[in-house]
Amino acid sequence: MKSKLKVGIIGATGMIGQNYVRLLSRHPWFEIVYLAASPNSAGKKYADAVAGRWHMREPIAKDVNDIVVEDASLVDKAVGKCSLIFSAVEMEKQAIIELEAEYARKGFAVVSNNSAYRAAEDVPCIIPEINHDHLAIIPQQQKKHGWKGLIVVKPNCSIQSYMIPLYALMKAGYSIDKMIVTTLQAVSGAGYPGPASIDLIDNIIPFITGEEEKSEVEPRKIFGKIEGGKIVPDSSIKISAHCNRVPVTDGHTACCSIQFAGKKPDMDEVISIWRKFSAPPQELKLPSAPIPPMIYCDEVNRPQPQKDRDEGNGMAITVGRLRKCNVFDYRFIGLHHNTVRGAAGGSILAAELLLARGYVK
Amino acid sequence: MKSKLKVGIIGATGMIGQNYVRLLSRHPWFEIVYLAASPNSAGKKYADAVAGRWHMREPIAKDVNDIVVEDASLVDKAVGKCSLIFSAVEMEKQAIIELEAEYARKGFAVVSNNSAYRAAEDVPCIIPEINHDHLAIIPQQQKKHGWKGLIVVKPNCSIQSYMIPLYALMKAGYSIDKMIVTTLQAVSGAGYPGPASIDLIDNIIPFITGEEEKSEVEPRKIFGKIEGGKIVPDSSIKISAHCNRVPVTDGHTACCSIQFAGKKPDMDEVISIWRKFSAPPQELKLPSAPIPPMIYCDEVNRPQPQKDRDEGNGMAITVGRLRKCNVFDYRFIGLHHNTVRGAAGGSILAAELLLARGYVK
Amino acid sequence: MKSKLKVGIIGATGMIGQNYVRLLSRHPWFEIVYLAASPNSAGKKYADAVAGRWHMREPIAKDVNDIVVEDASLVDKAVGKCSLIFSAVEMEKQAIIELEAEYARKGFAVVSNNSAYRAAEDVPCIIPEINHDHLAIIPQQQKKHGWKGLIVVKPNCSIQSYMIPLYALMKAGYSIDKMIVTTLQAVSGAGYPGPASIDLIDNIIPFITGEEEKSEVEPRKIFGKIEGGKIVPDSSIKISAHCNRVPVTDGHTACCSIQFAGKKPDMDEVISIWRKFSAPPQELKLPSAPIPPMIYCDEVNRPQPQKDRDEGNGMAITVGRLRKCNVFDYRFIGLHHNTVRGAAGGSILAAELLLARGYVK
Amino acid sequence: MKSKLKVGIIGATGMIGQNYVRLLSRHPWFEIVYLAASPNSAGKKYADAVAGRWHMREPIAKDVNDIVVEDASLVDKAVGKCSLIFSAVEMEKQAIIELEAEYARKGFAVVSNNSAYRAAEDVPCIIPEINHDHLAIIPQQQKKHGWKGLIVVKPNCSIQSYMIPLYALMKAGYSIDKMIVTTLQAVSGAGYPGPASIDLIDNIIPFITGEEEKSEVEPRKIFGKIEGGKIVPDSSIKISAHCNRVPVTDGHTACCSIQFAGKKPDMDEVISIWRKFSAPPQELKLPSAPIPPMIYCDEVNRPQPQKDRDEGNGMAITVGRLRKCNVFDYRFIGLHHNTVRGAAGGSILAAELLLARGYVK
Repeated sequence: MKSKLKVGIIGATGMIGQNYVRLLSRHPWFEIVYLAASPNSAGKKYADAVAGRWHMREPIAKDVNDIVVEDASLVDKAVGKCSLIFSAVEMEKQAIIELEAEYARKGFAVVSNNSAYRAAEDVPCIIPEINHDHLAIIPQQQKKHGWKGLIVVKPNCSIQSYMIPLYALMKAGYSIDKMIVTTLQAVSGAGYPGPASIDLIDNIIPFITGEEEKSEVEPRKIFGKIEGGKIVPDSSIKISAHCNRVPVTDGHTACCSIQFAGKKPDMDEVISIWRKFSAPPQELKLPSAPIPPMIYCDEVNRPQPQKDRDEGNGMAITVGRLRKCNVFDYRFIGLHHNTVRGAAGGSILAAELLLARGYVK
Repeated sequence: MKSKLKVGIIGATGMIGQNYVRLLSRHPWFEIVYLAASPNSAGKKYADAVAGRWHMREPIAKDVNDIVVEDASLVDKAVGKCSLIFSAVEMEKQAIIELEAEYARKGFAVVSNNSAYRAAEDVPCIIPEINHDHLAIIPQQQKKHGWKGLIVVKPNCSIQSYMIPLYALMKAGYSIDKMIVTTLQAVSGAGYPGPASIDLIDNIIPFITGEEEKSEVEPRKIFGKIEGGKIVPDSSIKISAHCNRVPVTDGHTACCSIQFAGKKPDMDEVISIWRKFSAPPQELKLPSAPIPPMIYCDEVNRPQPQKDRDEGNGMAITVGRLRKCNVFDYRFIGLHHNTVRGAAGGSILAAELLLARGYVK
Repeated sequence: MKSKLKVGIIGATGMIGQNYVRLLSRHPWFEIVYLAASPNSAGKKYADAVAGRWHMREPIAKDVNDIVVEDASLVDKAVGKCSLIFSAVEMEKQAIIELEAEYARKGFAVVSNNSAYRAAEDVPCIIPEINHDHLAIIPQQQKKHGWKGLIVVKPNCSIQSYMIPLYALMKAGYSIDKMIVTTLQAVSGAGYPGPASIDLIDNIIPFITGEEEKSEVEPRKIFGKIEGGKIVPDSSIKISAHCNRVPVTDGHTACCSIQFAGKKPDMDEVISIWRKFSAPPQELKLPSAPIPPMIYCDEVNRPQPQKDRDEGNGMAITVGRLRKCNVFDYRFIGLHHNTVRGAAGGSILAAELLLARGYVK
Repeated sequence: MKSKLKVGIIGATGMIGQNYVRLLSRHPWFEIVYLAASPNSAGKKYADAVAGRWHMREPIAKDVNDIVVEDASLVDKAVGKCSLIFSAVEMEKQAIIELEAEYARKGFAVVSNNSAYRAAEDVPCIIPEINHDHLAIIPQQQKKHGWKGLIVVKPNCSIQSYMIPLYALMKAGYSIDKMIVTTLQAVSGAGYPGPASIDLIDNIIPFITGEEEKSEVEPRKIFGKIEGGKIVPDSSIKISAHCNRVPVTDGHTACCSIQFAGKKPDMDEVISIWRKFSAPPQELKLPSAPIPPMIYCDEVNRPQPQKDRDEGNGMAITVGRLRKCNVFDYRFIGLHHNTVRGAAGGSILAAELLLARGYVK
C-alpha cells in the first residue's frame, strides 16, 4: 500500500464520530482529510468544535486538531478530497437516507453507523467475518440507484458478541434453529450523555428503546443470501432478545441459549470450532482484524466486560461458560466492546474489506 | 393473638441472622428471646457480638442489644425459652443437617434459610403464596424422624420473582412447559463481604457458584405434590437459568421467556391474572404478607431494583414488560428484594403460616 | 392547628418540585392546593404533566394526581387559593427575581429553593436551627419593597452538614476563625438528569460549577446579624471549599478542618456540645424538625451516605471522626441528605418556622 | 546494557506481587528469575500458584508461568540466582523486618513495598524524582548492619500525587509551610479483596485504617536530609490528611490547600514550574520514568481517575485546578495511579535508579 486512502467523517463531532477520529488517526491504510458536522460546527477547527465535549480518553491527534469542519450537508465540499466517507450523523431517519444517498451519488463509498439503511434490501449490513460476500450486491445497488459510489452499513452494536459464535457453528455445518438471548449492555452504547448517573447507581434498567427489535431482525439479514438482486434474510433462525442497561462503561455481555436445527456438535467440538474460527478479514490481514477473532475463556466466571473487552484491541469476541441448557441444547456467554467492534471499529474493518476487495480505490 | 410467640435465631450474628433480628424486633406476633451463634460469640451480649459488623442500616433494637448470645450447638439452652427457631447458621451441610435435626428432635419448629434440607423429600420448601399445602407433610415428617418439632425451609433467594408469576398462571389453569430465565442478582445475595468492589466496579460477573443448579431444581419441588408420604417434584416444567452478579445492593431482576404447555392466555388475561392474584397468606392477613403480593408495572422500563425493591415492605413481587416472545409465548421481567422476600422475610412469612395453621403454638 | 395551611408549589414538575410534592403530600400542617410550572405543563393534570419523568421512588399522592397545573407566570391564578408558595422554578436569575417578587407583591409568603435572592441583604437565607432570628428582617423587607407577602430562601445544598456543627460550637461560645472543607457530593444535587453515567462509573469529578463560591460566601450571611435594616455577613470566618462529585445517589459528605479564633474546647466538650445541641425548630416541635438535629457517630468509619443519610427522615445531620488536626485545631466528617435537609425538606422546615412564628397565617 | 539484571519477587502471588510480575515481565533492564511466596505456594509453578486469583487484566507472561515458586523464608534458594529482590510479602511487621534484613545480609538489594522499614532512619524511603540523593545513606546502612546488600523502600501509595507538585515548588525556591489535603482513594489501594461491593455501591467510606498517619509522617522523611549518618526529617512542613475510600478501581485523587512559608510564586509561575519540572529519573532516561513527570490539565474539571490515571503508562502525576485558596495561598487537585506510580511501578523506578547509580550490579 503505497499511499494512504483519503477518508472523511460526517457527524465527526458526536460520540461515534470521535471514536472514528480516535481510531483512524493512527490507521495504517486511511488518512483523515475531511471532517463534517452540523452547521453549528462548520467553519471551526476540529479541536474547537469539540472543545469541552471530547469524550475519548486519549487526546485528539495533532494533525486532526486543525482540520476545519465542514457543513456535512454541503456534499460538494468533500468532492476531490477523499473517496470514502464514514457516516455517524445524528439526524432523522429520512434525512440520513437522503444525505448518505447524496454522498453515494457523488461517488463516495459510504460506510455508515446509522440504522437508516439497515433494512434496505440492496445495502449490505456487514460483520466482515460473516457476510463479507454480501459486498457482491454493490454493482446492483449502484446500477439501481444510479450511484457512482456505494453504501454499506454495520449492524446494531448489541449483536456482535453472539453473531460470530453462531456463524462459526453454522459455517461448520450446524444450523441454529432458535436462540433466546439476554444482554447486559454498557452505557456507552447509548451515546453521550446516555443514562443519568442517578438512574444507574445501585440499579439496572431492563429496557432499551428499539434494541430488542433490532436484535431480532438484523441477524436474519446478516445470515441471508443474495438472490434476485437483493439480500434475502435467513428466516430459518428465530431469536428472542431481552436487552438490559447495566452500570458498565464499555462492553456488552450476552447470555445465550441456543437450539440446533438438526444434528448438533458435542461441547468439545463447539469449543474447537470457536477456537479455530478464522475468516477473510484475518486471512487478508486487514489492519483492524483481530487474530484470533474469537477467544474462548476457560475460567468459569469469564468473559467479564472490565477484564476482557479490550482483547484484540477491542475487536475480538470473547466467549465462555459453554454448558448444556436445560431447555435448549447449549448455553454460553459472549462479550464484545460495543464502541469498538460494535461501532466505529466494526465499520473501519468493513471499510478495510471494501478496499482490499477493490470496491473503493 | 394475646401474647407474642417466643422465638429464637441461630446463626444470629451473620448477615442473614442480622436481617432476622431487624425484621423480628418489631414483629407483631413474634418476640425474640433466644439468640445463638458460634462459640466465639457465646457469652457476649448481642450488641457486643456484632460490634463492628452490624450491616443493617437501622440500629439494633434496644431490647435485643442485651440478650446474651448462646452457643448454638448447646440445644438444651433453648429448651423452655421458645418454641420456634429461625436458622441462619453458616456451617458445612452435614453439620447443619445434624444441628437442625437436633432442634427439631427437642421440639422446636425450625424455619431454615439454609439449603441443607431443601432436597429432603419430607421437608417443605415453602413460598407461602404457592405451596402452603406442603405443610401437610409435617405429621409424616415428625413420625418418620421421631421429631416433636419440625423443619421447614425456604428456597434459594433467586427464584421468588418469577415463581409467583408462574404459579399465578398455573393456578388460573395454564400449564407452563418451559422457561429460559436470566437473572441480574444483587451483591447482598452473596452474604457479607460478598464480591469485592474491585470486581464489580465497571463490571458484571456472569457466574454465581451453584445458583443456576438451584434455580432449575427447586421450582420443581415447590410446584410438586404430596404423594405417598413425600413431596414429589413436578417434572413437567423445564427451566434453564443464567445467573449474573451485578453492582446492585439489593433486588434480584429476572428476564423470563415462557412457553405454555397447552392453551395460553392472551396478554390482557395474563396481566389480569397477576393483578388479581391472592393466596392464603393474604387471606389470612399474615403480618408479613404483602397486599397485593404482585404488582404489575405499566411503565415500559420497570421494574427496577433501585425503585421497586421496597414495594410491600420488600415482600411484594413487581413484574413488568409482558410482551410476545419471538421464540416462546411470552416474555416478562420479575423483581424481588432478595434479602427480604428472598431470605429472612420469606422465612418469617412461612413461620407466620405455621402459626396461623396451628403447626406451632 | 385546626385546619391545614393551603400551599402552592411553582416549578412543581421539576426534580425539586417533585420532592416538594412528595414531602408535602403527607404533611400535618400544609395542604397542596396549587401547582404551577411552565406553559408546557399548564392545563394538564399533575400526573400527566410529570408522566415519564416522575423521579421519586414513591408514587404521586392520590389527591395531588388530579390537580391541574397552572402557568406559574400567571400569578393571579394563585390568589385566593393559598397563602404560601414554595418556589422551585428553573429560569434565568433575573426572571426568578421578578417572578418571586410578583408573588410576594400579591401577598404570598414565598419560600424559595433558588439562589436568585440569596445575596439580597433583606432576604433571610435560612437554616432554621441557626439563623431563625433573621426572620425579624421581614417587616423591613416588606416595607422597602412594598410587598404584602415576603421572600425567604434556603442556602445551597452543600453546606448544611458542617454549618450546624459549626454553629453549635459558636453558640457554646467558641468562635471559628477558619475552615478548610472538602465535599464529596451526591449526583442528585445536580438535578435531573445530572451527570452522565459514563462520567461517574469508576470515576469522581473534582469540580462542580459555582459550588465552591457559594460554599464560601453563604455561610457568612447565615452567621450574620441584622443591623441597620439589613443582614450584615459575619466576615470573621474564612472558609475554603473543594467540591467533588462522587457516584452516590443522595447524601453529601464533608471533610472539615477547623481553627478556633480564641479559646477552644477539648474534644469531649465538642462532642458533648454537638450531642446536646437543640434549637427553636426542636423546641417548637416543628413537624420536620429532627430530634436530635445532630447525631454524633462513635464508629470510626461513619457517617456514610448509604447508611446515615436517612437519619431523622433525612433531616438530621450526622457527624463523626472528631480528631485533632495536624494543621488546624480539629477535624471531623459531616453528612446530610442533600435533597431533603439540603433542599425541599430544609425549605419546608423554614416554612414551618414562618407559620409557628406568625409570619404567615 | 548488555544483558538484563536478574531479579526476584518475594510475596509474588499477592496483589502487589502480581503487579510486579506484570510490569517486570516486559521490562528492558530486568528479568524475573526467582519468585517466592508462602510455604502454601512453594513448589508450584507460578501459573498454578495464582490460578483463580490472578487479578491483572493481562494474562501472565509466558516465560513466568512455569517458574517454580520458592518458600520466601528460605533465603538461600535465591542466592546465585539474582541480585535484586522486590518485596511484597504480607506478614507481621516484625517478620517482614527480619526477612528483608536476611535478604540484605545475604547480599541482595531489596526494594520493598512494605511499610516495615519506612521509619528506619538509615533506610531511604524513595520517590525517585524527589529524594534520589537519599541513596547516599546506603554505605552507612550497609556498614551499620553488616549487610552486603541493602534495603530501599517506597512510601505509602496515597501521597505521590501531591509530593511531586510540592517538591517541584520547593526545588524552585518556595518553601511550603503547611498543607491540608483530602484524598479520594481507589479500592485497589486496599489490596485484594479490599472493600466489599455492598459497602461501596452508592457510598463512600470516610476512613482508611492508618492512612492519615502515614500521609502526615512519611512526607517529612522524604523531604529530609542526610545528617550524621541518618535521614533527618524535614519538620518545617505540617500536613493534615483526610483519607476517603471511593468507588473507583484505580487512581487516587487529592484536594490540596497549601500555604507557603515565605515568598510565594504567582499562579502562572506555579504552573510553569510544574510543567518544566524534570528530575534525575527523566535525565537518566530510566525506562519507567514518565516524560514529563507531571502534566498540568487546563480543563476545569480535570484530572479525573478514569480519564487521567494511565498518563505516562501510569507513572505520570496529573494536576489541575490551581486556584487561590480562601484560607491558605493556593488550592489544586493531584492524581496518580496508585498501583503503578504508588506501588509496584514506583518501586521499579527506584530499582532502576539503584542500577543506574551503581548501587546494584
